[in-house]
Amino acid sequence: MKLVTYRQENRHRIGALVQSQAVIDLNEAFRQLLLSKGERRADQLAEAVVPSNMLEFLEGGPTSLNAAQEALEFVQSRENTEVQGMMLPLSTVRLETPLANPGKIICVGHNYREHILEMKREIPTHPVLFSKFSSTLIGPHDDIPLNPVSAEIDYEAEFAFIIGKRAKNVSQQDALEHVAGYTIANDISYRDLQRQTTQWFFGKNADGSAAIGPWLVTPDEIADPAALGISLYVNGERRQHSNTGNLVFTVPFLIEYISRVITLEPGDMILTGTPGGVGTAMIPPAYLQDGDLVRIEIEHIGMLENRAVRIND
Amino acid sequence: MKLVTYRQENRHRIGALVQSQAVIDLNEAFRQLLLSKGERRADQLAEAVVPSNMLEFLEGGPTSLNAAQEALEFVQSRENTEVQGMMLPLSTVRLETPLANPGKIICVGHNYREHILEMKREIPTHPVLFSKFSSTLIGPHDDIPLNPVSAEIDYEAEFAFIIGKRAKNVSQQDALEHVAGYTIANDISYRDLQRQTTQWFFGKNADGSAAIGPWLVTPDEIADPAALGISLYVNGERRQHSNTGNLVFTVPFLIEYISRVITLEPGDMILTGTPGGVGTAMIPPAYLQDGDLVRIEIEHIGMLENRAVRIND
Repeated sequence: MKLVTYRQENRHRIGALVQSQAVIDLNEAFRQLLLSKGERRADQLAEAVVPSNMLEFLEGGPTSLNAAQEALEFVQSRENTEVQGMMLPLSTVRLETPLANPGKIICVGHNYREHILEMKREIPTHPVLFSKFSSTLIGPHDDIPLNPVSAEIDYEAEFAFIIGKRAKNVSQQDALEHVAGYTIANDISYRDLQRQTTQWFFGKNADGSAAIGPWLVTPDEIADPAALGISLYVNGERRQHSNTGNLVFTVPFLIEYISRVITLEPGDMILTGTPGGVGTAMIPPAYLQDGDLVRIEIEHIGMLENRAVRIND
Repeated sequence: MKLVTYRQENRHRIGALVQSQAVIDLNEAFRQLLLSKGERRADQLAEAVVPSNMLEFLEGGPTSLNAAQEALEFVQSRENTEVQGMMLPLSTVRLETPLANPGKIICVGHNYREHILEMKREIPTHPVLFSKFSSTLIGPHDDIPLNPVSAEIDYEAEFAFIIGKRAKNVSQQDALEHVAGYTIANDISYRDLQRQTTQWFFGKNADGSAAIGPWLVTPDEIADPAALGISLYVNGERRQHSNTGNLVFTVPFLIEYISRVITLEPGDMILTGTPGGVGTAMIPPAYLQDGDLVRIEIEHIGMLENRAVRIND
């Protein structure tokens, strides 16, 4: 399932993408399914079982996911005239960041093998971790704000995963059971601020510096998270190109490693690092400019495209 | 006002400490005040104006704070027999971390002048910033969990402030208007994990690694946030001792500096750094041991004391 958060008339709701062209409102579809069965408290049950907020939906675990699947099948079994209010053309909705308020966003630095070797660095013995606040999140239809405080704003294509089930001291072999989905991230980095001190934090946490989306893809659609092509283009020019098979620290490794120290909760998001080809490593460096269009593609997930726009406030 | 979050019978509610020995339930006191005026919708109004959750209360700004002050005066003008349910002996309530779910916790490293000079380091030109997740928070009555993953768990006494009003591009001279209160923090640090890579993040974000409290002190009770004695004791032995006057980057400076890049929201917490005397700098290093009692005192705020306890899970 491809799970989206969309906005229609100032309401944020979750949906599932079908046939790459329509969004099914999962909460409404489940409510209609319950009504069709004569359920009197359909509103309350639908809100409890298939909440219209992504974090609450993920917290619902398999119960919510199975109910959503049932609701999807219900809608798809209907005639087109019967699905009003449940199915919306993709072109009429605005997609928001799929998960607006994760409890944690943990990021990995220096994690693509070929890029590390190309830079003549040593393969690290431990993941280099840092974090972004949820206040950095923007969605697939938002612009990347270029804050004039920095002259060196850069992109980073990343493969991200989202926790679906609490993880504490989880072993690598059980780790994937704790993943609710995968998505694309652009870890926008203010290189001058990032390098101003030893700690990257400030350059990684500017408002609007984490584009995420366009949707979360559930694990059943990703046969192998360690075999996905990943590319980034600026105004159509390919700058980054690799495969998640090049990750030094894999998804299962990261879950085991992190969960020994930090309990991971549903909705927590992990960005697995970026391949070679960032703007700051080009000769001469090529930072994001007002109007630049940044597109990231990851195999079996889709495409995340945002325009960079200079802001003044 | 000294604002607490306390638990009684599984409910978390906010209160004000009076005469160092009693807690007044602010929401209940305001509700009683409204009832005494014949207000029919006292429950709903009280919940809206003086919410029983600290983050919501801080979001209420001066409206909530003024109403809380009015409620306090109402209770204090009553006879003892009339205040049942509004005033509770401090000894009967369990204090929790005053603010459980801040949107951001931003920390400053290397910020005490005398400690930097003593270590023969240069005074930094920019604040060294990092962050902690709200999942690290524990309260004044909680134990500090010592996770066996680390053999080098250390304390750090810190003076912390909490944002009360959105701050974006705020100048130093206006900065203190954005502060809702001050408190004490113990920034528990896993030194081995902190130093395993260039980024401190992992060693700073273990579950339960931020003790905060015992209360938030509103700015009217702190004449000068840059003139407060700060000390830390382990089992009664003084290890850290300084004054917030030694901060290289002051509260107003930090608000201006951070808010150019990261919009600060009500409830956001900033930990201003620790003075000399941490366990890792002792010869030989002295890390926290099972059973150690760590007490931090900051002038005009109070005392935060937690016991370190080895955990096994």
